[in-house]
Amino acid sequence: MSSSNARGFASDNYSGIHPDVLAAIAKVNVGHQTSYGDDDTTALLADKFRLHFGEEAHAFPVFNGTGANVVAIQAMTKPWEAVICAGTAHVNVDEGGAPEKVGRLKLWTIPTPDGKLTPELIDQQAWGFGDVHRAQPSVVTITQSSELGTVYSVDEIKAITEHAHSLGMLVHLDGARISNAAAALGLPFRAFTTDAGIDALSFGATKNGAMLSEAIVILNPEFVKPIAYLRKTSMQLASKMRFISAQLNALLTDDLWLNNANNANQMAARLAAGVSKIQGVKIVRPVEANAVFAILPATVVEALQKRFHFYTWDQVTGEVRWMCSWDTTPSDVDTFVAAIAEEMSKN
Amino acid sequence: MSSSNARGFASDNYSGIHPDVLAAIAKVNVGHQTSYGDDDTTALLADKFRLHFGEEAHAFPVFNGTGANVVAIQAMTKPWEAVICAGTAHVNVDEGGAPEKVGRLKLWTIPTPDGKLTPELIDQQAWGFGDVHRAQPSVVTITQSSELGTVYSVDEIKAITEHAHSLGMLVHLDGARISNAAAALGLPFRAFTTDAGIDALSFGATKNGAMLSEAIVILNPEFVKPIAYLRKTSMQLASKMRFISAQLNALLTDDLWLNNANNANQMAARLAAGVSKIQGVKIVRPVEANAVFAILPATVVEALQKRFHFYTWDQVTGEVRWMCSWDTTPSDVDTFVAAIAEEMSKN
Amino acid sequence: MSSSNARGFASDNYSGIHPDVLAAIAKVNVGHQTSYGDDDTTALLADKFRLHFGEEAHAFPVFNGTGANVVAIQAMTKPWEAVICAGTAHVNVDEGGAPEKVGRLKLWTIPTPDGKLTPELIDQQAWGFGDVHRAQPSVVTITQSSELGTVYSVDEIKAITEHAHSLGMLVHLDGARISNAAAALGLPFRAFTTDAGIDALSFGATKNGAMLSEAIVILNPEFVKPIAYLRKTSMQLASKMRFISAQLNALLTDDLWLNNANNANQMAARLAAGVSKIQGVKIVRPVEANAVFAILPATVVEALQKRFHFYTWDQVTGEVRWMCSWDTTPSDVDTFVAAIAEEMSKN
Amino acid sequence: MSSSNARGFASDNYSGIHPDVLAAIAKVNVGHQTSYGDDDTTALLADKFRLHFGEEAHAFPVFNGTGANVVAIQAMTKPWEAVICAGTAHVNVDEGGAPEKVGRLKLWTIPTPDGKLTPELIDQQAWGFGDVHRAQPSVVTITQSSELGTVYSVDEIKAITEHAHSLGMLVHLDGARISNAAAALGLPFRAFTTDAGIDALSFGATKNGAMLSEAIVILNPEFVKPIAYLRKTSMQLASKMRFISAQLNALLTDDLWLNNANNANQMAARLAAGVSKIQGVKIVRPVEANAVFAILPATVVEALQKRFHFYTWDQVTGEVRWMCSWDTTPSDVDTFVAAIAEEMSKN
Repeated sequence: MSSSNARGFASDNYSGIHPDVLAAIAKVNVGHQTSYGDDDTTALLADKFRLHFGEEAHAFPVFNGTGANVVAIQAMTKPWEAVICAGTAHVNVDEGGAPEKVGRLKLWTIPTPDGKLTPELIDQQAWGFGDVHRAQPSVVTITQSSELGTVYSVDEIKAITEHAHSLGMLVHLDGARISNAAAALGLPFRAFTTDAGIDALSFGATKNGAMLSEAIVILNPEFVKPIAYLRKTSMQLASKMRFISAQLNALLTDDLWLNNANNANQMAARLAAGVSKIQGVKIVRPVEANAVFAILPATVVEALQKRFHFYTWDQVTGEVRWMCSWDTTPSDVDTFVAAIAEEMSKN
Repeated sequence: MSSSNARGFASDNYSGIHPDVLAAIAKVNVGHQTSYGDDDTTALLADKFRLHFGEEAHAFPVFNGTGANVVAIQAMTKPWEAVICAGTAHVNVDEGGAPEKVGRLKLWTIPTPDGKLTPELIDQQAWGFGDVHRAQPSVVTITQSSELGTVYSVDEIKAITEHAHSLGMLVHLDGARISNAAAALGLPFRAFTTDAGIDALSFGATKNGAMLSEAIVILNPEFVKPIAYLRKTSMQLASKMRFISAQLNALLTDDLWLNNANNANQMAARLAAGVSKIQGVKIVRPVEANAVFAILPATVVEALQKRFHFYTWDQVTGEVRWMCSWDTTPSDVDTFVAAIAEEMSKN
Repeated sequence: MSSSNARGFASDNYSGIHPDVLAAIAKVNVGHQTSYGDDDTTALLADKFRLHFGEEAHAFPVFNGTGANVVAIQAMTKPWEAVICAGTAHVNVDEGGAPEKVGRLKLWTIPTPDGKLTPELIDQQAWGFGDVHRAQPSVVTITQSSELGTVYSVDEIKAITEHAHSLGMLVHLDGARISNAAAALGLPFRAFTTDAGIDALSFGATKNGAMLSEAIVILNPEFVKPIAYLRKTSMQLASKMRFISAQLNALLTDDLWLNNANNANQMAARLAAGVSKIQGVKIVRPVEANAVFAILPATVVEALQKRFHFYTWDQVTGEVRWMCSWDTTPSDVDTFVAAIAEEMSKN
Repeated sequence: MSSSNARGFASDNYSGIHPDVLAAIAKVNVGHQTSYGDDDTTALLADKFRLHFGEEAHAFPVFNGTGANVVAIQAMTKPWEAVICAGTAHVNVDEGGAPEKVGRLKLWTIPTPDGKLTPELIDQQAWGFGDVHRAQPSVVTITQSSELGTVYSVDEIKAITEHAHSLGMLVHLDGARISNAAAALGLPFRAFTTDAGIDALSFGATKNGAMLSEAIVILNPEFVKPIAYLRKTSMQLASKMRFISAQLNALLTDDLWLNNANNANQMAARLAAGVSKIQGVKIVRPVEANAVFAILPATVVEALQKRFHFYTWDQVTGEVRWMCSWDTTPSDVDTFVAAIAEEMSKN
């Protein structure tokens, strides 16, 4: 492994805090403010989110992505209802069972080719309405950008929300990497959320340059009151809230969110371009946001993992995942590509 | 109300971040680090907590006090077990039902005169062992310093742990204000925790000058593995953990925790001394840490609350709570005392 | 202990099945019927309950009283809400924590002198509306007849429902012994439920001569759909439902419920009358339904418990509980009274 | 639809109570017995289950199959653990989400061709041990006979238990139709449970001729204490337990369970044989127990469902399920086969 603080390709949450975000924390560190969100910084945050997501949007800062997802989806479901998601969804595979264990949520999972649901795929689980023996499908959750690095188009999201709504279901969007998706699409957030029929979403900031900050954004006013209570009940309400809000505000100021996301996406594109020239390394999924998935010889993976942080995604196929971050530099990418080429040549 | 950022006496969580803590966050903001706690800063934190709580101590940083309490107590109980606490305990009255709703915990509550349990009080609920109809008492949780501003002596804690252990129960300590208690007792943390038979505790840092940081400290090694999983499952695991750990490390360096706590306690004493000279204002509880509870005329309370932030503790008796913080100054106190005297004189 | 099947005074659930109830089970044991409640016997049950509780009543048979309580109250609460009950309530002390552990319910408990709540007592916990830190009081549950053998008058119930409704809360009635209460009051069920503002109740049949049968009765139509799902989700939906429904139907036919309850109440009155003549035995609570609570010397209790089944209610005071059942006979009572007198004379 | 009580092929839980079971209920309806299982009939049940499942077996009567499954599996898991099951498993698709909602269980589901798991299939989800982000696989549950009418051989079960145990996991068996499986295999229960390495199971009696009675059978003594508490906490503890136990005892006496299961299985074989002669009707799964799955023209299904109760299993393929019961007669089968032939001829 290279030196302890070197930038690798393991995850965008290995990165630190963008200097502007840290400065924003310092800036609000003045005197006393009412705790739990009744402060000036959080009032400003409400404005920022209305600007980006429309006048009906309500933002609730929380601690982390799992918290954002579970609190939001819990507010959207009754205790006998269930959630449709892709088998690869973070809520299914990476939250330690928090949806079931904290939110009492039944997940109806669906295998997908690329991490994205479609109306047709949703229909595999969207049935049994009115049958008490079947946990009632009531929310569809999609991830944008997805866990496999793919991005839903506006039309794809609209097709899902129209289909779900026609069946009486709601649609939640897990936006742990929502900025990467917006950057990839070249669209404002609201184009593929508010204006595309999404009811509620998790807005990810931590991976985009924050220290520790996510927000639940409610677009369907019916869920505003439930979220206010469930955030507390689910242990996601910060006392010194201004410092969480300040991070989100900083990212939503002067396009910092966009610049950070663009950088991560561009570095992934650069990585994909560089790697595609190396014989024997196969990029196995579309590179649409900040992730690159590839298959290369196991011995090469092993050698590379001694020099750089990254994860094997699938033990069976040997597929690996390389994530780029807001702070990844062209030099980081080029060094890594060179190292891959070097290790491949030894193979 | 005075100007927006003025320091009042509402809560120690109205305060901001101590400069040394903020500097510590900035200092570790270098390059990439493994997420979820496998980083250098968190490794250092493990050492710091072993130093303060003994070689067997394991510390797990979490987001907030409710999270720390619910995760720790959940690890200490089986699904059919229950928790004995004072009726005034934070877990009972101020966590939005998170212990029941996230932790599935049944609380057996006991009225107390001063927020403190005793072996005799515990016996009001510590019975029915082996009876499947009674949620089995298995953990006693005490708060140090208590929600009523009182502090357990070492002997009082030992009496509780000995009694609880003799009945096969464990003892948890809610240390949201553990530093204020240690400062008040003039003792190291371990004197009234590890060495007094406590099995696990919540270590509060947010109110002591951190931005957002608490830790679960496990003293009984049986619960180390459960906590590692339950912290994730309960949505209390931070990805960029180094920034949580850095805050705790800063407080545990060069007695910053102690200086902050001493200041808060001393300001409460100064406030109590000042107020005790004002006729018609009655201090109604022992001032042992950083809280002052008082009864004064309702019209005076009303007038004061227009000028300073503080809460009415009991609507029926009119009792109010004044909390001092790590950043409360003698001038803050003197100004407030003068204001109380002024409003009383108008009464 | 006397012979194994002798009728004692331990609990009304030590009794067996009334012959008419068993005959009703046998009568519907003909051929196939649709499972899970879509059968002729359950259709008849719906009519019976409408007759007794009014045209808006919906009855849902379940397995046991804990199930009836937890399913009903869960339907009446949102995940951040809480339940106000007497400290002695069955939901608090005798359900193994099922309300918290299955229903995720926070209980706000209140000490009472006689097992009965009043508007004034309710106000001890009915506060903090709108405060996210306080699990929101939303349902008051009362037990009729109470765990201490007392019976609410119609006016007492009306005072509670009016008060609760005025605060935006609902009222649930745990009627594990509702027939004993109706018999004691000399009133039809609806007089102190539907017509007194109760929103939902648990209708107990097991203790009144059934084998295994209780019903949730919903009087507020808003909760009909939730119950239909929550009964299944909470594992209280019987497949061969007709046999549960038949038991309830039998009790609600030709006043069987009333005759059974009257007998139990009368036997309790006879027992109280008999015992009150024995010097040194003190009846310590009003005997209003089928329970008698008494204090007598510990050595006498011990001697009696070798001959008859009954429970010590309070280990500290030595108070014992004697329950009469639908099948208790005057001879059972007289034998027991004589035994008490005999053991007292030896004392 | 034919007359209301006619025997159809919808489900084995449409049937009634076997006369011997009803007689057994009546027989124990004598005087008083201690409630909650401390009675003579339940003591006898303990002996019966030890006889069938070995000296280490502990049986706990419960109300229904969902209750048996959820209580048993909950006892076998820690709050951060998860359960591997077939996608078609009853715990996944037919329990209204009770495993998630009552038991807080995360299910890792696996598609299977025939409703049966294998070591290879289990490996699709049995990974990630020690990773806090993945709900830890800890129990494999299999259904015998399966929801698709197939039966595991002893060797198939042993392969699963050996594999699971080697990975540190436990194995639960959902035996809602365990008697049909034993009858199909021609083996005593213990041959494919206790002696094949199963740790705990749900013993189904309701579908086998009982009124309302299932049992959790614990073969791994570690889980005896947890079950005792969790049965109560999960609202599955009957007060008048003797009447539940009596039903199980009756079935386990003089091979009543076996005769009932043999009849159901033989009627399914007769039905399959009869139907296989009708051109255009395709039996699509092996008929190994008491279920027949077939595909036939939609118009014929529609016409038949007007005359007989049965369910469409798969709306897409039109596959139907025909279940035979303990009381299905050769004449019932022949009438149904003739009706199928008749409707096919009209097609």
